[in-house]
Amino acid sequence: MHPGKEGVLGQLFGPVMTTDAMAAVTSDRSWLKAMLEFEAALAEVEAGAGLVPSTVVGPIGQCCLDYDDFDILALGRAGRMSANPAVALVAELRRRLPAEAARWVHFGATSQDVVDTAMMLVLRSALDLVLADLSRAAAAAADLAARYRCTPMVARTLLRHALPTTFGRKAAGWLVPLLEAASALQRIRHDRLAVQLGGPSGTLPGLGPGGPRLGDQLASRLGLVAPVIPWHTDRTRVVEAGAALVVAAGTAGKIALDVALLMQDEVSEAAEPAQPGRGGSSSMPHKRNPAMSAGAGAAWRMAQGLYAVLLAAMAQEHERAAGAWQAEAETLSELCRAAGGAVSVTADILAGLEVDEERMAVNLQLARPALGSSEGGTGNAEQFVDRALAFYRGGNWGVGGHD
Amino acid sequence: MHPGKEGVLGQLFGPVMTTDAMAAVTSDRSWLKAMLEFEAALAEVEAGAGLVPSTVVGPIGQCCLDYDDFDILALGRAGRMSANPAVALVAELRRRLPAEAARWVHFGATSQDVVDTAMMLVLRSALDLVLADLSRAAAAAADLAARYRCTPMVARTLLRHALPTTFGRKAAGWLVPLLEAASALQRIRHDRLAVQLGGPSGTLPGLGPGGPRLGDQLASRLGLVAPVIPWHTDRTRVVEAGAALVVAAGTAGKIALDVALLMQDEVSEAAEPAQPGRGGSSSMPHKRNPAMSAGAGAAWRMAQGLYAVLLAAMAQEHERAAGAWQAEAETLSELCRAAGGAVSVTADILAGLEVDEERMAVNLQLARPALGSSEGGTGNAEQFVDRALAFYRGGNWGVGGHD
Amino acid sequence: MHPGKEGVLGQLFGPVMTTDAMAAVTSDRSWLKAMLEFEAALAEVEAGAGLVPSTVVGPIGQCCLDYDDFDILALGRAGRMSANPAVALVAELRRRLPAEAARWVHFGATSQDVVDTAMMLVLRSALDLVLADLSRAAAAAADLAARYRCTPMVARTLLRHALPTTFGRKAAGWLVPLLEAASALQRIRHDRLAVQLGGPSGTLPGLGPGGPRLGDQLASRLGLVAPVIPWHTDRTRVVEAGAALVVAAGTAGKIALDVALLMQDEVSEAAEPAQPGRGGSSSMPHKRNPAMSAGAGAAWRMAQGLYAVLLAAMAQEHERAAGAWQAEAETLSELCRAAGGAVSVTADILAGLEVDEERMAVNLQLARPALGSSEGGTGNAEQFVDRALAFYRGGNWGVGGHD
Amino acid sequence: MHPGKEGVLGQLFGPVMTTDAMAAVTSDRSWLKAMLEFEAALAEVEAGAGLVPSTVVGPIGQCCLDYDDFDILALGRAGRMSANPAVALVAELRRRLPAEAARWVHFGATSQDVVDTAMMLVLRSALDLVLADLSRAAAAAADLAARYRCTPMVARTLLRHALPTTFGRKAAGWLVPLLEAASALQRIRHDRLAVQLGGPSGTLPGLGPGGPRLGDQLASRLGLVAPVIPWHTDRTRVVEAGAALVVAAGTAGKIALDVALLMQDEVSEAAEPAQPGRGGSSSMPHKRNPAMSAGAGAAWRMAQGLYAVLLAAMAQEHERAAGAWQAEAETLSELCRAAGGAVSVTADILAGLEVDEERMAVNLQLARPALGSSEGGTGNAEQFVDRALAFYRGGNWGVGGHD
Repeated sequence: MHPGKEGVLGQLFGPVMTTDAMAAVTSDRSWLKAMLEFEAALAEVEAGAGLVPSTVVGPIGQCCLDYDDFDILALGRAGRMSANPAVALVAELRRRLPAEAARWVHFGATSQDVVDTAMMLVLRSALDLVLADLSRAAAAAADLAARYRCTPMVARTLLRHALPTTFGRKAAGWLVPLLEAASALQRIRHDRLAVQLGGPSGTLPGLGPGGPRLGDQLASRLGLVAPVIPWHTDRTRVVEAGAALVVAAGTAGKIALDVALLMQDEVSEAAEPAQPGRGGSSSMPHKRNPAMSAGAGAAWRMAQGLYAVLLAAMAQEHERAAGAWQAEAETLSELCRAAGGAVSVTADILAGLEVDEERMAVNLQLARPALGSSEGGTGNAEQFVDRALAFYRGGNWGVGGHD
Repeated sequence: MHPGKEGVLGQLFGPVMTTDAMAAVTSDRSWLKAMLEFEAALAEVEAGAGLVPSTVVGPIGQCCLDYDDFDILALGRAGRMSANPAVALVAELRRRLPAEAARWVHFGATSQDVVDTAMMLVLRSALDLVLADLSRAAAAAADLAARYRCTPMVARTLLRHALPTTFGRKAAGWLVPLLEAASALQRIRHDRLAVQLGGPSGTLPGLGPGGPRLGDQLASRLGLVAPVIPWHTDRTRVVEAGAALVVAAGTAGKIALDVALLMQDEVSEAAEPAQPGRGGSSSMPHKRNPAMSAGAGAAWRMAQGLYAVLLAAMAQEHERAAGAWQAEAETLSELCRAAGGAVSVTADILAGLEVDEERMAVNLQLARPALGSSEGGTGNAEQFVDRALAFYRGGNWGVGGHD
Repeated sequence: MHPGKEGVLGQLFGPVMTTDAMAAVTSDRSWLKAMLEFEAALAEVEAGAGLVPSTVVGPIGQCCLDYDDFDILALGRAGRMSANPAVALVAELRRRLPAEAARWVHFGATSQDVVDTAMMLVLRSALDLVLADLSRAAAAAADLAARYRCTPMVARTLLRHALPTTFGRKAAGWLVPLLEAASALQRIRHDRLAVQLGGPSGTLPGLGPGGPRLGDQLASRLGLVAPVIPWHTDRTRVVEAGAALVVAAGTAGKIALDVALLMQDEVSEAAEPAQPGRGGSSSMPHKRNPAMSAGAGAAWRMAQGLYAVLLAAMAQEHERAAGAWQAEAETLSELCRAAGGAVSVTADILAGLEVDEERMAVNLQLARPALGSSEGGTGNAEQFVDRALAFYRGGNWGVGGHD
Repeated sequence: MHPGKEGVLGQLFGPVMTTDAMAAVTSDRSWLKAMLEFEAALAEVEAGAGLVPSTVVGPIGQCCLDYDDFDILALGRAGRMSANPAVALVAELRRRLPAEAARWVHFGATSQDVVDTAMMLVLRSALDLVLADLSRAAAAAADLAARYRCTPMVARTLLRHALPTTFGRKAAGWLVPLLEAASALQRIRHDRLAVQLGGPSGTLPGLGPGGPRLGDQLASRLGLVAPVIPWHTDRTRVVEAGAALVVAAGTAGKIALDVALLMQDEVSEAAEPAQPGRGGSSSMPHKRNPAMSAGAGAAWRMAQGLYAVLLAAMAQEHERAAGAWQAEAETLSELCRAAGGAVSVTADILAGLEVDEERMAVNLQLARPALGSSEGGTGNAEQFVDRALAFYRGGNWGVGGHD
């Protein structure tokens, strides 16, 4: 939410939760840019269909490139009058444009068309970042699984020593959900990010019988999916995107939890990558905290609540909601930041994970008396590693089943 | 949760939220039956692999058919000792079986293998019910969309009169998310319900090198997917199933909200199907309450919180969780009941919806002065209806995009 | 939610989450009993005010004692017609009563008056159980704090060794939030459990000008608070009760988490009370799982989501909600069971906690090299223990501040 | 969360949700100021106790006044190394201070002492704003209750016409929960905002036996409560503050929902205060949207999820959490902004509410045939108004009961 004169928001505690790159693609400026992309593309396809004069395309397009030049806080404050900033943005565009272009900009569209389409464009950039980090995390997990395929360690169930496993098997157990998360996000990325163009009542009344086709063209121009019909109060795709993001964050949360537990002094089987200053405490110079895992854990907890907001906003009344829709934009940005941050730092953890095979052996030995003969050894740990690696290399992660 | 001597739970307020059929497939007895199915099938595939004597298959299978004969509350109470009822169930099986069979039942498996696989079997039955009701709801919505394709009414945005639409267009706006919900649940139903067989440490140590293959066979026998590797602390599929269920509930919640709003005395454009006694009040005989929509709305609110539990339980430590996993079973059952109930009653509402076209015309007329010339009429409402119906008939609802 | 023919609900997984006593006071039968108490008391005060014939008091009171004799599932199913079982219950009462009594039973009341008042009566019994368990847990924590006031152990921050503390100080850190939770629940118990009597429109139209005073008398007779005005759509007290319950569960969750972490094989500084069979595994006879902590952790996770339902249902429209109110009853019962279960098992854990002072010394020694001179020793651990114990003995826990 | 180069966060969609004043007191700069207040006050009380040289108090105090001069984003980014910005802030202070002062600043404290105390100071400012707006909202609701004490309108239950009430009674139904919310927040404001001073292990090892007393003095100097003992992993007060905030938001949400429903074209009994441009649409100049109610509804939905994060972070392990604690600061700020925004705009709505008594009469007349004789008239609506107003004037809102 917005800062007053006293200063900005989200810069003091935010960086622990997310990356600079994700903060950038979900910033107010990126939203504004996306909203302006919608207006420029709309003018283009409308001119192509003869609905607006082709002479307005240039000026509108030019004006929409000036996204660095708009006063975002002023737009946001003006947005209080209509519960979203689109009305104010269109007014500002009209103020900047020559009369004819001012008349035709935003023609036939409604506020929600702009904001929803911008949301999809912002989501697209954000999902690409999360997917890249998931890919990085999966590569690192696969590498750990392969490298420590046969390294014995004790499996822990209900936080107690169970039978032996291998560290490779543990890493395989991180790898598979990373791939499942990537698969779910890819589906959203490619099949579910749709343009919104319904006009004031979801019927595109101002655009003539070519309206629906125009929506398809707009989708194509913006690289989005053309929906069957406008989805003003069908929030399935928003909630589905949120669900995939929060699942990715949860997978990161699980891995970070495991690493923090392995990093306990008495356990010491693995550690976050060392770096001068990392994990330091303001009072205990000797300490090395699992600061990365803590960041991932914090982001994961935030992601849960942020997703709950999207869910609480899902049942939207009639043709446009009074309150529910308005809760989504900021929330989805925060959710991208939280999930993206959790996944990114998890990729960093996995890529630089310090593994202490000797300590694993020691702790396993500790467990021996209780385990008894433990005839099975590490059982089929290696075989499961191989299955996970084959799945990883196979690339078709959507199903998550074994052939 | 469990009743004491004072009586049972969930029978007084529960029926408002769900159907008898859904209550049955998610009942304690159905869970018990599914757990026993796992044990019987495990013995079969293990005997096939020569891991257990083939003579134990018959007695174990027979005993596992007696699911009506177990004292569920006693199992549940005994479950306090291990935080789940599987240990007690296996002990009870052993008590009932001849010595040799008692020795080999549950061979190589762990408690979570039983409970997780049972969860998938219960989910399968539950999803089939939800899918049938989604199908029924979609058919009814499609019928409304077709029947009232051109019936003018006022579109309402932020609860205020916007421009005209048609009631068919509104019904199309219900139809599409019902199909999206069905598509998501079908994916879960067919691709994501997996057997669990990992043994005490996720490595199947007792089953020899054929262990992983045995898991595949068990999946095949139970009609479930064979996972890449055991998923004891990869809860993606549980959370994904929950997400699809809560989205279905949210779609039902949206439709029920619209109907309740349309049923307001001053609006009166549509009403839940009349039935003697339905919607009655204990103090005002004249009233006809939107009792079905209220039930759907209540179930939808419950579904949100129940899903949050699954999410809060997602990050599970090491090879089996201490607390997170144990929160899932009861929660997932409740979520099936809530989502299933919401969808089912919504299907009933849509199938019997009373539509007052005349009143729609009157209310639209009320809006005219403000709407001005309203040249666009109902715009492309009909075209959007046609697109939604074509999508419905096309059957490939996974993408939700227009070709 | 309700079972079908296949069997009951909540008996298989429920006992892990809650106690038999809590299951009993929140059972369907207890709800029914409370609803009937409302009807009996209403007739009494109405007869006292001359609003109904005094001859109907006896028959109504008698009939309302027969709560064991009603078919709960039939009432629940009939409740589908009105989205709550009150209409059906009143009808059933009328069927059972002689004509005159039948005419006057429930006079002037509405369904929500019955259900909301019953909710408060059920809550009262449930809160008394939770308060007793909090008291038990606090006594045990105080005992640990006193007994191990000076027992050195390593403090752990971000799961890493920090400086020394004492186990008494750790127990003091459990004691204080238990007292804070008790204080919050006591406030709810004594100040916020209010009768509901507003009639069909929140104005008690049928009871004449003495209506409001009658509500006060009804409150007095039932041992509840008399609210300023009927609170049909002011759900503050419901949400506040839920908030106090979930906070109690969270405190239990924190203690259980600590115990499970202390019980890790490599740490082994404390353990849940041993009992034959407790903590056993279906596959590893040697294991001793933190089964009680796992149960508390599961209940704590459920409590969070159940509270979210109450919150999602808080904004209720006009004079009675269509959907939001109807989600509360079952949810609040489940929340009582989850919070009550978490607190009760935590009291059991603390009362029988096994503490290994020697191991604490060993682990602390492990930390020494890193800690350096550690001049401060255990710092003011003992002083803080004394402050916590004085606070405990002082009894005025509402503020949580030091004098 | 934090912006990258592309621009800031929360200014585009944030202002719809909150006020400039609330954004200011919860901004990064306000947090920084509060953290520096802690460091300055700590040096003062430590010098008073002879723990640090009195000569360092001046330089430290001076440096801590320069809060406008710190690079917040740099601190935030440096915070990634330790999962919170306190370590970086202390380092920056030390860089700015002369050697002796640099040595003694932050003496004996830990990162969480700084951040938690700052959280309480930020909360104090935020709660004061919410309380002022609650007071304003209550005054407006009381005024409506008094003014329309006898104005008949139809009560609506389950969104359907019930019996008559008065608009004053409806406003009384808004007034009482506003007072309950104020009461709860006042209790937090005065009894529960506590200093945090526990040092690295919660035992204040560096401060000698006077450590605990020093904490009390620090509390007194900062105007906060002195807690019984440090509360590093007892998050009760954080969660309680969150619960009171979300309840205030829910009350605002209920009122906003009622107003939006009353503002429907077919109902038109009340409307948000008119202002040129307010409620405008980007496509329909004739429309007047409930933009204020929509903003409140959006903020209310966000508040629910943000509170869920605090709850998900409540069970914190051992003496400081790895992940849970780190999720609180940003979340609590957002929750203040959401709750504060919802309450503030609701106060604006109530203060300027346009009431159409004539339309109320017309709609009531519409209901008459169904209501029948409706002998009770508006029942005890006026009496309940009087009770609510007496409660309001009485000032002791904590109990919410009638004397």
